[in-house]
Amino acid sequence: MSQDASRFLPMANAIRALTMDAVQAANIGHPGMPMGMADVATVLYADYLKFDPADPHWADRDRFILSAGHGSMLIYALLHLTGYASPTLDDIRNFRQLGSVCAGHPENFLIDGVECTTGPLGQGLAMGVGFALAERHLNAQFGDDLVNHRTWVMAGDGCLMEGVNHEAIGLAGHLKLSNLIVLWDDNNVTIDGKVGLSSSEDIRARYRATGWHVVDCDGHDVASIRAAIDEALASPLPSLVACKTIIGKGAPNKQGTSGVHGSPLGADEIAAARVELDWPHEPFLISEDIMADWRSLGARGAAAHAEWSARLDASATKAGFLARFASVADQAGPAVQAHIRDLAAKPQKIASRVASQKALEPLTVALPQLIGGSADLTGSNNTKTAATHGITAENYGGRYVYYGIREFGMAAAMNGMMLHGGIVPYGGTFLIFSDYARNAIRLSALQKAGVVYVLTHDSIGLGEDGPTHQPVEQVMSLRLIPNLTVFRPADAVETAECWALALATPATPSVLALSRQNLPQVRGEGDAEWTPAGNRSAKGAYRLKAAMAARKVVLMATGSEVSVALDTAAALEAQGIGADVVSMPCQELFNRQDAAYKADLLPADTLKVSIEAGVTHGWERYTGLDGLTIGLDRFGASAPAEVLFQHFGFSAEKIVPQILAKLGN
Amino acid sequence: MSQDASRFLPMANAIRALTMDAVQAANIGHPGMPMGMADVATVLYADYLKFDPADPHWADRDRFILSAGHGSMLIYALLHLTGYASPTLDDIRNFRQLGSVCAGHPENFLIDGVECTTGPLGQGLAMGVGFALAERHLNAQFGDDLVNHRTWVMAGDGCLMEGVNHEAIGLAGHLKLSNLIVLWDDNNVTIDGKVGLSSSEDIRARYRATGWHVVDCDGHDVASIRAAIDEALASPLPSLVACKTIIGKGAPNKQGTSGVHGSPLGADEIAAARVELDWPHEPFLISEDIMADWRSLGARGAAAHAEWSARLDASATKAGFLARFASVADQAGPAVQAHIRDLAAKPQKIASRVASQKALEPLTVALPQLIGGSADLTGSNNTKTAATHGITAENYGGRYVYYGIREFGMAAAMNGMMLHGGIVPYGGTFLIFSDYARNAIRLSALQKAGVVYVLTHDSIGLGEDGPTHQPVEQVMSLRLIPNLTVFRPADAVETAECWALALATPATPSVLALSRQNLPQVRGEGDAEWTPAGNRSAKGAYRLKAAMAARKVVLMATGSEVSVALDTAAALEAQGIGADVVSMPCQELFNRQDAAYKADLLPADTLKVSIEAGVTHGWERYTGLDGLTIGLDRFGASAPAEVLFQHFGFSAEKIVPQILAKLGN
Repeated sequence: MSQDASRFLPMANAIRALTMDAVQAANIGHPGMPMGMADVATVLYADYLKFDPADPHWADRDRFILSAGHGSMLIYALLHLTGYASPTLDDIRNFRQLGSVCAGHPENFLIDGVECTTGPLGQGLAMGVGFALAERHLNAQFGDDLVNHRTWVMAGDGCLMEGVNHEAIGLAGHLKLSNLIVLWDDNNVTIDGKVGLSSSEDIRARYRATGWHVVDCDGHDVASIRAAIDEALASPLPSLVACKTIIGKGAPNKQGTSGVHGSPLGADEIAAARVELDWPHEPFLISEDIMADWRSLGARGAAAHAEWSARLDASATKAGFLARFASVADQAGPAVQAHIRDLAAKPQKIASRVASQKALEPLTVALPQLIGGSADLTGSNNTKTAATHGITAENYGGRYVYYGIREFGMAAAMNGMMLHGGIVPYGGTFLIFSDYARNAIRLSALQKAGVVYVLTHDSIGLGEDGPTHQPVEQVMSLRLIPNLTVFRPADAVETAECWALALATPATPSVLALSRQNLPQVRGEGDAEWTPAGNRSAKGAYRLKAAMAARKVVLMATGSEVSVALDTAAALEAQGIGADVVSMPCQELFNRQDAAYKADLLPADTLKVSIEAGVTHGWERYTGLDGLTIGLDRFGASAPAEVLFQHFGFSAEKIVPQILAKLGN
Repeated sequence: MSQDASRFLPMANAIRALTMDAVQAANIGHPGMPMGMADVATVLYADYLKFDPADPHWADRDRFILSAGHGSMLIYALLHLTGYASPTLDDIRNFRQLGSVCAGHPENFLIDGVECTTGPLGQGLAMGVGFALAERHLNAQFGDDLVNHRTWVMAGDGCLMEGVNHEAIGLAGHLKLSNLIVLWDDNNVTIDGKVGLSSSEDIRARYRATGWHVVDCDGHDVASIRAAIDEALASPLPSLVACKTIIGKGAPNKQGTSGVHGSPLGADEIAAARVELDWPHEPFLISEDIMADWRSLGARGAAAHAEWSARLDASATKAGFLARFASVADQAGPAVQAHIRDLAAKPQKIASRVASQKALEPLTVALPQLIGGSADLTGSNNTKTAATHGITAENYGGRYVYYGIREFGMAAAMNGMMLHGGIVPYGGTFLIFSDYARNAIRLSALQKAGVVYVLTHDSIGLGEDGPTHQPVEQVMSLRLIPNLTVFRPADAVETAECWALALATPATPSVLALSRQNLPQVRGEGDAEWTPAGNRSAKGAYRLKAAMAARKVVLMATGSEVSVALDTAAALEAQGIGADVVSMPCQELFNRQDAAYKADLLPADTLKVSIEAGVTHGWERYTGLDGLTIGLDRFGASAPAEVLFQHFGFSAEKIVPQILAKLGN
């Protein structure tokens, strides 16, 4: 089973040579990590990793994650050498150039075989926890025959120092994810210098304290690496394999220093390295025998893949298994149809977080892919449903993750689960703590991972917890992230509509910003025969109430302020001033509508007024410079919600005079 | 020295009673933590904490931080009982009501004696690291006579689970901050239930692995608490005192459960608790003898304060000491004057991150308060100057913190140092990783802590590292945070001007968004005799270049796009179209100018065009709906900067046709 180790050194040097040459050609990049971990990577791919270059999407492949994403040339070299269709040698020659799939950091949306996008330190490892958890959950559902693979993470000192590392390994240790193996590039060097410049911790003891198995090896000795990995695989715990390496190994004058971390070696040092490595070939040239050795490695995985396919074909659960990996895009709308029709018949004045749970009840029944969770706010986020029970180390078949007080780790784990396939995760915390998870939310968007963030307590409407907990800038700032859809529904009907829309975009993550406080149901009329095709939130904004008197004003609002807009419109109409009310649960979807729809909804000849209990900056996109933006451009305060709404001017009584002044009345 | 411990139980019960009554009156709040930690708090205040209720600002007081800020009634009770001027009993009666200083979470800007604003979990502890480091640094400068105090943090399981905890304790352990003592409320309960629902880690072993001393005690036994604290004080390491407590102790039916964490006890349980605690008094009433015991505690600190004042008066360094705690607001402008005049004489085409370092050189010489640092990107952030040397466990007198790969921990530590007084911290990371630290940046703003964030690599202009590292939404999203000033300077002159402005607002934190790539110097004309009063960036935006032909267009831009705007203006002028160029290094400052200034700069009868290599959402505030917003509403790509600027349309060649089309030419 094990490969002939005498061939490993030249194979590893092929990684080193491609790395040196590509970084030099780009004149920018990180040679240190790929050169340091080349031996470990060679052993991993030769003897352990289950992969089939002919099918990077094979569901039961092992997942390999380069958490130290700046060492991207390592994975590009590995994928090319083992015979994946991409990257080609030309891609590698064009490392870091426009149009090359070999971007500065590995991006899952550019190359099959890159499981997730890494670079923001710590998150690759934290996503690895999600991958490993996804595997265990699907294993519990479908058995060893169909789901039985490992998640391998390669991480550097930076990944282990980031706070998200603490959250991630805490969760993995608690859930005893023994299928997760972290190969730590223990080279003792960071950008600023030696690790000892800023850290004195005993990493091994910390991992052990967190429920991990730890084993050491010499990262340049094949037998030592094999022995350590074998020990890791035998442990019932997640494992940290500490690989003692020399950063930039092979560059005789620069190896072992921070100088080799993130800069090209330079022509002279590359020449010296070619001598050191006994690598006489011209740049980018891999000799036929070494390439043949690399290309032979895929045979093991191809055989395993064939056996797996035969098992799948013979399996009684084949259809169910394949369905789990299919898109749920078309299924969410029908799943909430009966619920919305019920709401039309029996309106409910409830918080939108409660409305979210009511929408989730039928959704979690209809969609076994949905895995819920919360960062220790289950009862507040209303994320748990009757169909979802806790996932534990003893029962991975549950469908609800108690993430603990780990918002960033939760978001990263959700990304990992989604990118694994077979699972659509949603997870809750307070909207304010989206700040803690913000870069993982951004990575959901960048990676095209359509997870759903259930972010409750969405404004000063949460009341007494005060400004530390009251989001004022979060809704607008989340809207700024490309490929993220932010929903702020006005009532129970819109909440269900927004859930259907959120689950309809597997490549676009969503945020649901939900109220703590009760909201009157503003919808229902015309919804008795609701169908997914008639989802009024789908265009992002719609006319909820048309002016009765001659229209002079259009009030647009989101979430809890829609009812304030309705009150305001009523007060204006009472004075003979016609006012439309536009509910705008999703700016991103509205932005995509055609000019005619936008002009019809927000006509040029009206005073356009936005009402949202958050910062006004950004609303000028809809009100124009001569409109009126009602919002909160300061931090909130601690008091009951209704007091704060009055105090900060979110009432018809406070808004009407401002509109009259604008109209010159 | 030690107080008579027989009096401690009724004193602790006073905390419990005030907590029960205040939470019940508000009908919302968190009784569990204050009731559980009442005994520990009583021992701390009676025997250890150095405090003087008559002067909450005394520089050499111990700092007490309630990291578990939801237990705010604990600190309100302590401050009231020990005789601080605020909060009054009326404030406590009005807990969580509008206008009461007793907000849902403790807020430093409402009550003297609350050292920092807590609630977002983990950050109180992380700020505590900054407080402790500030003390050690000032001790190294001024000696034991003037600076010799401790930082006490009370933290819950949530604080210890958050990722920022890992970063904070790693830094504290590395720097051997023995003056930092964390009192851990080890009650084994979180909101979702028992800690074991989501965590299995050995917290003691983890802290030990990170360079901490750990000691256990029974949190309801005075002798045990005293012994543990004494052991902690004797250790040369920072200490974790694990206080085994019963959450909500005193509520006979609910204590020890998650139900007591965040909900009022209810009238029945409060009645039962009054029996259990032998507390017959009516709500909010503290008997005279118990109050007298509490009020007597301040005498110890008052005496220490008097002795300290005498030492200060006798000290040769008195003036220097007092100056360290004074505002630097007026000093930064003069400090950069010669530098700016030099730039006027000898223009430099350099990256604004390099320009930042050049401005910091004279600033760090003139202002000993400035303590720099970086999250392992010193050479990239250009944050280290000749005047600043590393702070180490062996030499706290340095002025540069190697924070390690700990962005969130760095930002929180900066907040702690600033709020300690005597220090003005600045710290660097890549702008993209402001996401990791975002909630600490928000807390800088909320807490009125005027730290400076040096955020480099501020756009696609960073080039080859690609979209994981290229901020597109960060500049605009930081602008949305209230009381945070975001600067994006165009060249070396503006960078120095913005540094002067950033340091001029001790109660408002600042962000400097700085380029990786070189920028031509666009300023210099008229700057040969530059003075602080003539800081052109002070109004946030100014006319950099006036139209020559009849003005039809106003181009506004920030940072690296100002030179693109100048190129565009030149191209328009060549076609006979007059175009102003407005440089807008700071939207927040511009927003504050009067209508006349705004109208003069951005006249209604012109086509207003914004150019910024980031999201366009938000620019409509200045361009209006009929203007043109040139930006990047998608993620970037990996390629050299100049290639990306062309590719994404940031060049006169690409922009001029869009302007001509708008003008109808």
